Amino acid sequence: MGEVKLSIFGFGNVGRATARVLLEKERVFKEKYGVSFKVVSISDRSGTVWLPEGMDLREVLNVKEAFGRLSAWSNDYEVYEFSPMEAVKEIDADIVIDVTNDKNAWEWHMEALKRGRAVVTSNKPPLAFHYAELTAEAGRRELPYLFEATVMAGTPIIGLLRETLLADSIEGIEGVLNGTTTYILTKMEEGVPLEEALKGAQRLGIAEHDPSGDILGFDAGYKATILHCLAFEPITFDEIEIRGIDGLPLEDVQRVRKEGKTLRLVASIERGSVSVEPKELPKESPLAVSSTQNAALIKTDLLGELLIRGAGAGLKETASGVVSDVITATIRLRGG
Amino acid sequence: MGEVKLSIFGFGNVGRATARVLLEKERVFKEKYGVSFKVVSISDRSGTVWLPEGMDLREVLNVKEAFGRLSAWSNDYEVYEFSPMEAVKEIDADIVIDVTNDKNAWEWHMEALKRGRAVVTSNKPPLAFHYAELTAEAGRRELPYLFEATVMAGTPIIGLLRETLLADSIEGIEGVLNGTTTYILTKMEEGVPLEEALKGAQRLGIAEHDPSGDILGFDAGYKATILHCLAFEPITFDEIEIRGIDGLPLEDVQRVRKEGKTLRLVASIERGSVSVEPKELPKESPLAVSSTQNAALIKTDLLGELLIRGAGAGLKETASGVVSDVITATIRLRGG
Repeated sequence: MGEVKLSIFGFGNVGRATARVLLEKERVFKEKYGVSFKVVSISDRSGTVWLPEGMDLREVLNVKEAFGRLSAWSNDYEVYEFSPMEAVKEIDADIVIDVTNDKNAWEWHMEALKRGRAVVTSNKPPLAFHYAELTAEAGRRELPYLFEATVMAGTPIIGLLRETLLADSIEGIEGVLNGTTTYILTKMEEGVPLEEALKGAQRLGIAEHDPSGDILGFDAGYKATILHCLAFEPITFDEIEIRGIDGLPLEDVQRVRKEGKTLRLVASIERGSVSVEPKELPKESPLAVSSTQNAALIKTDLLGELLIRGAGAGLKETASGVVSDVITATIRLRGG
Repeated sequence: MGEVKLSIFGFGNVGRATARVLLEKERVFKEKYGVSFKVVSISDRSGTVWLPEGMDLREVLNVKEAFGRLSAWSNDYEVYEFSPMEAVKEIDADIVIDVTNDKNAWEWHMEALKRGRAVVTSNKPPLAFHYAELTAEAGRRELPYLFEATVMAGTPIIGLLRETLLADSIEGIEGVLNGTTTYILTKMEEGVPLEEALKGAQRLGIAEHDPSGDILGFDAGYKATILHCLAFEPITFDEIEIRGIDGLPLEDVQRVRKEGKTLRLVASIERGSVSVEPKELPKESPLAVSSTQNAALIKTDLLGELLIRGAGAGLKETASGVVSDVITATIRLRGG
């Protein structure tokens, strides 16, 4: 398998960053892994560009950046109005890449697997609600189903749990997995009220236009659910405990600070139990991260405590995880 | 491959810890990976016990702990006086495990590969001097040659570089990779002279009887060489710069402390350049570890900075890396 056909779903920030890494590091990947990637389709909300012979990523990035939508490319190429499900059925690809926010994407992930395609996803809800079905289907068909970028962007906590800690039994994981709340809590420590800190985060592009997923703790909850599934056994998002930072009084945050500690939204994962809630941490705690850094402390029977800390957000940081998975999937598909 | 034949070389602390993990987690590994390990030989300095049908690990651990040497088992079994090379040639095994300190082990690692056996090693000099030959031979024969436990015990920095950061290009690594010097430097900060701190470390079993490898920086140098080989390209230990902590004046250590900083033996790895030397670190530096913790800060083009921190020594901590590699080798040998 010298040439691998990719079908990319989602062409927002992460999708474009992924395309950019594939384009800019094309020669590196060819040399290091002996592989060429051929992007046969890209879909955004406006439509699907599908070129079985592969497309010029520089050109497609230019179109998207100039016009904001792929359908503007219809002067040069046919643009299809497929649903993701239709696109998965129609388009022949080796690896389906989901960098959308589609909450129902698990259905077309399943379809992709049934059609013998590997799946790489940065989209969390499919795993947070359907981990068991998806990984069972992938297992049955011996297909890679990979999701490094769903937790801590490209910081390889998924790979670490899946590929490296093979002799250890995980006893628990504690993590700060959402950068937006860290940013807001840091601002609140400085005396800025939540609403205002949130607006600042939105101006900086750290928080989404609809930030409820961050503030209510859903984003951290999705991630914690996925870590539980991987470290222990499948559960779903409905089964976990979440308390976000909404309604957190400014005085509380400042009191914690005065006591020389710091408040972070902490996910705690043990067998059969996942919770997300604001927790007081000593300043020197390895989880007392700042800005969009994430950290996770993994406890195991043999190693004791293991800390992994790195980017938890960012475009090329997330693309790192997506493309790393694409390379892993490629190596596995060719039986390496 | 339901049953995998292991040949263990070295039955000191790490060898016994490895056997203990294989024994105690036998059922876990069987359930999780569908594999049974059959130890067909164990060698210590006194001789080799070889039972092609597999041995009772509980029994062999009891003999070693009661008598201090495997040759005491000659009442029940034949004990062979093989050199490691002879043992590799003679004994049929799927995976050869080197947990010795044999500086010339690379020769019998090569022999093992030539005979179609995978190799798992915690022994550093073979890699620090012969990385290129060993990995080329393993590559040619498509055999696993794995060495997680050579750097940071079982803390999975090797796996992280090898299996997970596939899209990133490494730009540099800085690490505190030797716990003995951290212990000694911490004691010196408290006013204890080097000689005395060293004796304390020996009493605690942290430092070897011959601690020159730690003090002179050789141990950290071996590890840094291996990281360079993996992250960039093969070099050998002869090509790197090392300044240990021998002769470091107590006043220097205490001056650094008074300035609110801390001194650690830091390995710096960039393409084509490896150095090991005592460095002043801010107290809040992620590399300012204590006791036998190790830490490494990995810089890449996409992720920026990634920190991994955990056990750098210890028996079950090292066995974690050895056994994880044994499981990885098994999965690869059966084509998974």
